Amino acid sequence: MEAINLIDKFDLIDDLWNPRVVADLNGQQVKIAKVKGEFVWHDHEHEDELFYIIKGEIIIEFRDKKVTLNEGEMMVVPKGIEHKPIAKEETWIMLFEPKNIKHTGEVKHDLTVDVFKKI
Amino acid sequence: MEAINLIDKFDLIDDLWNPRVVADLNGQQVKIAKVKGEFVWHDHEHEDELFYIIKGEIIIEFRDKKVTLNEGEMMVVPKGIEHKPIAKEETWIMLFEPKNIKHTGEVKHDLTVDVFKKI
Repeated sequence: MEAINLIDKFDLIDDLWNPRVVADLNGQQVKIAKVKGEFVWHDHEHEDELFYIIKGEIIIEFRDKKVTLNEGEMMVVPKGIEHKPIAKEETWIMLFEPKNIKHTGEVKHDLTVDVFKKI
Repeated sequence: MEAINLIDKFDLIDDLWNPRVVADLNGQQVKIAKVKGEFVWHDHEHEDELFYIIKGEIIIEFRDKKVTLNEGEMMVVPKGIEHKPIAKEETWIMLFEPKNIKHTGEVKHDLTVDVFKKI
């Protein structure tokens, strides 16, 4: 039981689209990641996924619309909904999602991370 | 599926220690609250609880230590651990916790909220 400083944790990250686990609770995890550029289209069959923007701006592209999230904004992407995050500049995000979620759902991609490391 | 702006949501809150639900996912909820002063000693028998500080500073008092959380810091209070949050000045917090958690565990208090409203 100790304070987790997100900015200190972000300072340890030197790659993109590679979420690190900062907290575990109730079978869920809080993760953080630096992102820039376009991610891959995917969905999570059984898991809702929360995006929260710590710094920067992200666009969550859906098949029928786009939602822009700025610093201090969040959104839940419901299970089964295809989405593609895009960040024009480096953006720092927090995720809240079930522990066993697959990074890119059933899609395999160069960006796919199989094991989320703690930080 | 739309952006949830936390500051806009906080602007709608004019009371203390009364968490409002801003997002539902995977049987969990994201809540926000304005807090000031001392809360009540309690624990949650079956639920871990995450505190994240949006603005201000909170002290989480435990029976054997205190942890201070500043803006941008978070902590998980594991299930079964007695705790008492204290904020010297008005502080804005975000909580991640299971949907059916009881506000003050088995303790009944004037501050106890039975139904968490959406905002």
